[in-house]
Amino acid sequence: MSASEDGDARVQGIFDAIRVVPDFPKPGIMFQDITTLLLDHKAFRDCIDIFVERYKDKNISVVAGIEARGFIFGPPIALAIGAKFVPIRKPKKLPGEVISEEYALEYGTDRIEMHVGAVQPGDRTLVVDDLIATGGTLSAAMRLLERVGAEVVECACVIELPELKGRERLGGKPLFILVESA
Amino acid sequence: MSASEDGDARVQGIFDAIRVVPDFPKPGIMFQDITTLLLDHKAFRDCIDIFVERYKDKNISVVAGIEARGFIFGPPIALAIGAKFVPIRKPKKLPGEVISEEYALEYGTDRIEMHVGAVQPGDRTLVVDDLIATGGTLSAAMRLLERVGAEVVECACVIELPELKGRERLGGKPLFILVESA
Repeated sequence: MSASEDGDARVQGIFDAIRVVPDFPKPGIMFQDITTLLLDHKAFRDCIDIFVERYKDKNISVVAGIEARGFIFGPPIALAIGAKFVPIRKPKKLPGEVISEEYALEYGTDRIEMHVGAVQPGDRTLVVDDLIATGGTLSAAMRLLERVGAEVVECACVIELPELKGRERLGGKPLFILVESA
Repeated sequence: MSASEDGDARVQGIFDAIRVVPDFPKPGIMFQDITTLLLDHKAFRDCIDIFVERYKDKNISVVAGIEARGFIFGPPIALAIGAKFVPIRKPKKLPGEVISEEYALEYGTDRIEMHVGAVQPGDRTLVVDDLIATGGTLSAAMRLLERVGAEVVECACVIELPELKGRERLGGKPLFILVESA
């Protein structure tokens, strides 16, 4: 389910605060720009509140945020629910020992990394990013977490692009989103 | 001043939670790794609380965070003090019209960008990053903000590397830090 299904009035404010920029980063892409949401204090606050209401009693021990926009939404959730925050980063950014996973791009592949030891076996983990498109990055993040024995409880994103069917690439794990793209 | 000067017991916990990784990203660098701080919920919470206590009554309208680690510390502060959050990003990441500033690296230059219209003339702005080294990035961020007529009230970082004298490159603007590097 998404928050929009429960008719929450806050969701409309969040939707309205997201700007769509046509043809970025290339022609034909309708880029969902969350920077305008971050300028709307009430809408940004509402995003975090909705996530916190959903996860505060779910015994989540780790919030994993994906670089870079997952770093904006993950930490306020982690701080509010009493969880650790674990950054999942682009290659060569983390200074300690890492494990990594590849994921497919339109042309070629990219890779994300996580520190060894950051997440413990049995950690109940929430994976956070701003947006799910094809689901490639979220799926790679889930593989990293499952390799170290963590339990992925759910993935949470502000925006879903439903036509790209990323939800189907999450191996049956639940995905919670606030809004669908316009 | 730094928080350490007021003898705050929380600061010792923050200091202890930061890991030093030798020889990253290259030989001779003692990398200050804040990812271990993010795993220590109390220490991370204390970081944000100290910043919020300092800025909550300073009439700050914008918190500007520098990619990528400034995205981890800036949003919780912005949410708590009722300010907008403005991401300052690496080139070609922001989809709207941007202004940019160069800064020097050891070899060559790099650039950071900010959306036009994100910050208004007169906005009282706090600039947040995890660490100040030479001060090149913070200084470029301040130039971006001042070009659009914003007032930079202060720069706030978790860690200062005092031997690199970055503080001297901030054009007299105050810098608030929580800890000095070990």
